[in-house]
Amino acid sequence: MVTGTDINAPTPLLDRVSSPDDLKSLSDGELALLARELRRETINSVARTGGHLGSSLGVVELTVAIHAVFDTPRDKLIWDVGHQCYPHKILTGRRDRMHTLRQEDGLSGFTKRSESVYDPFGAAHSSTSISAGLGFATARDLGADVGDVICVVGDGAMTAGMAYEAMNNAGAAGKRMIVILNDNDMSIAPPVGALSTYLTGLCAGRPVKDFKALVKQAASQLPAPFREGAARARHLAKGLMSGYTMFDHLGFCYVGPVDGHDVKDLLRILRTLRDNADGPVLLHAVTKKGAGYRPAEMASDKYHGVSKFDPATGKQAAAKPAPPSYTSVFGKSLVAEAARDERIVGITAAMPGGTGIDHFAKVYPDRAFDVGIAEQHAVTFAAGLAASGLRPFCAIYSTFLQRGYDQIVHDVALQGLPVRFAIDRAGLVGADGPTHAGAFDVGYLANLPGFTVMAAADEAELMDMVATAARHDDGPIAFRYPRGSGTGVALPKAGVPLAIGKGRIVREGRTVALLSFGARLEQCLIAAGRLDQRGLSTTVADARFAKPLDLDLIRDLVAEHDVLVTIEEGAGGGFGAMVLQALAEEGALDGRIAVRCMTLPDSFIAQASPEAMYEAAGLNARHIVCKALDAVARANGPESTRDHRAYSVL
Amino acid sequence: MVTGTDINAPTPLLDRVSSPDDLKSLSDGELALLARELRRETINSVARTGGHLGSSLGVVELTVAIHAVFDTPRDKLIWDVGHQCYPHKILTGRRDRMHTLRQEDGLSGFTKRSESVYDPFGAAHSSTSISAGLGFATARDLGADVGDVICVVGDGAMTAGMAYEAMNNAGAAGKRMIVILNDNDMSIAPPVGALSTYLTGLCAGRPVKDFKALVKQAASQLPAPFREGAARARHLAKGLMSGYTMFDHLGFCYVGPVDGHDVKDLLRILRTLRDNADGPVLLHAVTKKGAGYRPAEMASDKYHGVSKFDPATGKQAAAKPAPPSYTSVFGKSLVAEAARDERIVGITAAMPGGTGIDHFAKVYPDRAFDVGIAEQHAVTFAAGLAASGLRPFCAIYSTFLQRGYDQIVHDVALQGLPVRFAIDRAGLVGADGPTHAGAFDVGYLANLPGFTVMAAADEAELMDMVATAARHDDGPIAFRYPRGSGTGVALPKAGVPLAIGKGRIVREGRTVALLSFGARLEQCLIAAGRLDQRGLSTTVADARFAKPLDLDLIRDLVAEHDVLVTIEEGAGGGFGAMVLQALAEEGALDGRIAVRCMTLPDSFIAQASPEAMYEAAGLNARHIVCKALDAVARANGPESTRDHRAYSVL
Repeated sequence: MVTGTDINAPTPLLDRVSSPDDLKSLSDGELALLARELRRETINSVARTGGHLGSSLGVVELTVAIHAVFDTPRDKLIWDVGHQCYPHKILTGRRDRMHTLRQEDGLSGFTKRSESVYDPFGAAHSSTSISAGLGFATARDLGADVGDVICVVGDGAMTAGMAYEAMNNAGAAGKRMIVILNDNDMSIAPPVGALSTYLTGLCAGRPVKDFKALVKQAASQLPAPFREGAARARHLAKGLMSGYTMFDHLGFCYVGPVDGHDVKDLLRILRTLRDNADGPVLLHAVTKKGAGYRPAEMASDKYHGVSKFDPATGKQAAAKPAPPSYTSVFGKSLVAEAARDERIVGITAAMPGGTGIDHFAKVYPDRAFDVGIAEQHAVTFAAGLAASGLRPFCAIYSTFLQRGYDQIVHDVALQGLPVRFAIDRAGLVGADGPTHAGAFDVGYLANLPGFTVMAAADEAELMDMVATAARHDDGPIAFRYPRGSGTGVALPKAGVPLAIGKGRIVREGRTVALLSFGARLEQCLIAAGRLDQRGLSTTVADARFAKPLDLDLIRDLVAEHDVLVTIEEGAGGGFGAMVLQALAEEGALDGRIAVRCMTLPDSFIAQASPEAMYEAAGLNARHIVCKALDAVARANGPESTRDHRAYSVL
Repeated sequence: MVTGTDINAPTPLLDRVSSPDDLKSLSDGELALLARELRRETINSVARTGGHLGSSLGVVELTVAIHAVFDTPRDKLIWDVGHQCYPHKILTGRRDRMHTLRQEDGLSGFTKRSESVYDPFGAAHSSTSISAGLGFATARDLGADVGDVICVVGDGAMTAGMAYEAMNNAGAAGKRMIVILNDNDMSIAPPVGALSTYLTGLCAGRPVKDFKALVKQAASQLPAPFREGAARARHLAKGLMSGYTMFDHLGFCYVGPVDGHDVKDLLRILRTLRDNADGPVLLHAVTKKGAGYRPAEMASDKYHGVSKFDPATGKQAAAKPAPPSYTSVFGKSLVAEAARDERIVGITAAMPGGTGIDHFAKVYPDRAFDVGIAEQHAVTFAAGLAASGLRPFCAIYSTFLQRGYDQIVHDVALQGLPVRFAIDRAGLVGADGPTHAGAFDVGYLANLPGFTVMAAADEAELMDMVATAARHDDGPIAFRYPRGSGTGVALPKAGVPLAIGKGRIVREGRTVALLSFGARLEQCLIAAGRLDQRGLSTTVADARFAKPLDLDLIRDLVAEHDVLVTIEEGAGGGFGAMVLQALAEEGALDGRIAVRCMTLPDSFIAQASPEAMYEAAGLNARHIVCKALDAVARANGPESTRDHRAYSVL
């Protein structure tokens, strides 16, 4: 256990490690000591930067043992989700850049192929590692220069269907690969689902202590069942009659549970697996999230994600006073609507805190459902609730909702079921980087027949959109809003339902029209002020709806301005594209107006502050000003006789 | 077994059934006889229309037994996939419309909410029923007017992660619901994966014959384990040590296996479950696809999908001579590329025949992978193969690829891995209707950074696109092509790689430019001929690429024509939207040209022939002509002095 007094102790062994190769010369005892140093280094490092501490502390010993036993990077070590990879980064040549973690131009907070050869497959979303690992193992058996494959997967990640699909395939393929189930009985929130109960039962039924028997089990059982048909049949028959686990049923050889914090035990069991495995193996390692650091172990979230903190005490830097987050405004609004309407229920996929469903669950525990990391199921479950006459709010981050896309199309949109999608983390999200950006939801929702798609310009409008969605039974409806704090606008007592498909004029002008969809409205207003100063009278409109579009509003903007610029916090093919298509369809583009669409660029934007990311994306006020000025100049042409003082600055 | 001689026997019992209520007055013996009549009726019906015969024949007895025991439609019967619902449709008031099955204005080939109150949750994609069922069961427990919930799921559908996610959630929630595993050891193709082996083992270990013991097991075990904590703990402990199944591990009470073709046994076991179940139950029913009809039982695909046939002999109507299908051209092209390049591998998600991967698998069995109904895994597995240096072709229908969307974004696009997506069934697909339409892929792929997106105008171009994809290592690449026969163009000996991002002019004109993306090219050429006849000289271009766009080509079209019309077999937000955004960005829309985008309309189009569906979609030659004429008229205005004979016809 690291305490305040020894946090600054020297790290003599770690100082000798510049790559995993250096572990090969250390004794088992030294590797155990190295793990202690690595834990301190991880704590001190994250204290400076903030980040995902709890999960990284849980795998310190696993990290050391895997790199000591296996031959990375030829052997492929794949960390599921990848947020637990800080000790791995420290051991694989990135120690000197750990102070840049999750910052602009710094190290990613996740594994990333472009960052290191020791990251053979990047991640950030959950439950992808077994699929990728089977890809590597299959390629190896077809002749690719790949050694062993080791996937480390949390118990939370195992609730996702994707992990099951991969095990079902890998178990049948019978290829040698090692899946380490990192069972810390905790995903971001406490785990849910039958699997969690099952794993607890597994541990209760098979004490960790009997280590010798375990090694014997591993050594004796491993090669046999996968060698030929008869052995496999015996294995199956045994599985029916005796203590075989679910994982055995899926064709994996289950080994465990082992103490995931005992380096020496881990080394022995991993060597046994390395020397004997002849098919897919599941090693069940029991760990503690936040292990070895009392402030983390004591915290309810096990320091899942922390801001900068004092390593001696664990005290995190106080957050700066800020307006309420969109997330909390959503959560409270949902509670308010639910008080009025008992048909309202809330669904989260393992993110009660992140989505604000925790607020709702506290007040209405029977009406809140955490289905686990299972977005596909979450969406269709919500569709079933809607088909029963309830009013489900399905609260999923934009990027994770991608996991439920087919269910949105097939189960929700095709049947016209009134599922409400509360889409948090729309747009760029900062330190979590491109894997967590909510870039595509408008594009993938707004072309679905019968869908209503909204974006909140600020947190007050979000309240109105919750109220709108609560009352909208005519089909599916979605509303998106950014990560982080609102703009600080005054909040009404209650949200007021909006007219479907109606935007609003926020500011009136004559020459340039800025049509904002979502939270760039603030930047649009700043830009409008600057354009006015340059003599370009500027209208700002808040579209509110990408679908149905407010065609009356858009027609008026086209008729009364020289230039129309659309702005959104999303990729191309979204709101702007819908506006262009609608205008083209009406012939309204034919020589009448200059239109520009400002969207996220056609590239993935690396992590930085949200502001810096929007700067990189070219979606801040100054970019809006430039875009409008350029469009005005082109619209009027060099031979223009119209007088805009703006031209002098171009 | 239905044979030729008794196929036309009378159906006196069935004639008395106009709704499931009428089953309540029949004895068990009469219900068994009814099932025999229903089988004949199903065969005779599908003989006239074609359709999914094999799966429907496999559930005749289940259909009768469920409707006899449960109180539909208040009890919710949810057929997974829904293609096995023909006997269900016959019993639920749709017998007199079965001759319209899968035809324009006729009955859907799947369950459909808007078609009947007996279809509480429509389907067509696989593995959604347990999620939806849990939604109904949850709503019931919150006060909705819902009775029991019965989901019928095939063993193939159980390979999908979504089914596992739902079971993990349902097993923990403990709500009463009955999942009937319809285990016919067959999805469309023979089943794959560890689960299939496991189910075979389950049946071997638990003989079907001991029916009395089974009923006793069900009656005694059912209520207890879910009533309170102690019992549940005992259940878990028992699961570890003895013969509990995977389904028990997931919190379901496993009952089975039972003979799914024995009506009397089914009635007794279903009544037992109805009267005793106090939590989630999985009833394992063993059935035969195509059961009771020798021609179906003897066929390798068990008459999964058939054309019209002679019910006496089972002989299917010969297909009209037609050009080779896009699917077969893809399959053969892939074989040809693979002969040249041993790094090429092929992946299918349970559709080897449907995707043409079966051709490839015959020649290269070690390089072909059927991962089961598991699109999420398929995509990331392919990403792992690509990360290992192989060249994977991931062949998935457009509509099913929606299941792997997040994996495309997160595992493929973000990492820039060169996975090749062969997207069959792009556009409208005919009898399978809107659930199988490939409407959205261009929209959801073309805004992903680094992606290359192609569409084949004909089967010869498809060959070139396979060759292009085979050689493209710079990032992910996708090519889409329609269902069914090609256009009949001459096929080259081998595909020739295309220049990335380059389209081609097919026909040159001066006034109207038709820019086609994909297989509407043929209709564009017809339209161009008609436009020429009306005095509008028309260019036709084949874009080939939605990303990267051929901006040189598009700029030329804009510069040299009055009107530009884009045409694609996809929803809005796709190719046309990309063209509009690119033109807007360059200021090329500013008063220079009239542009129109022709896409699928903003509605789901019910099944009909593909031609009729495109007629309903407004994407045939005559619609293209009208769109162009209208745009020309508007572009030139009523005061236009330009002379186009066309105006007289408007």
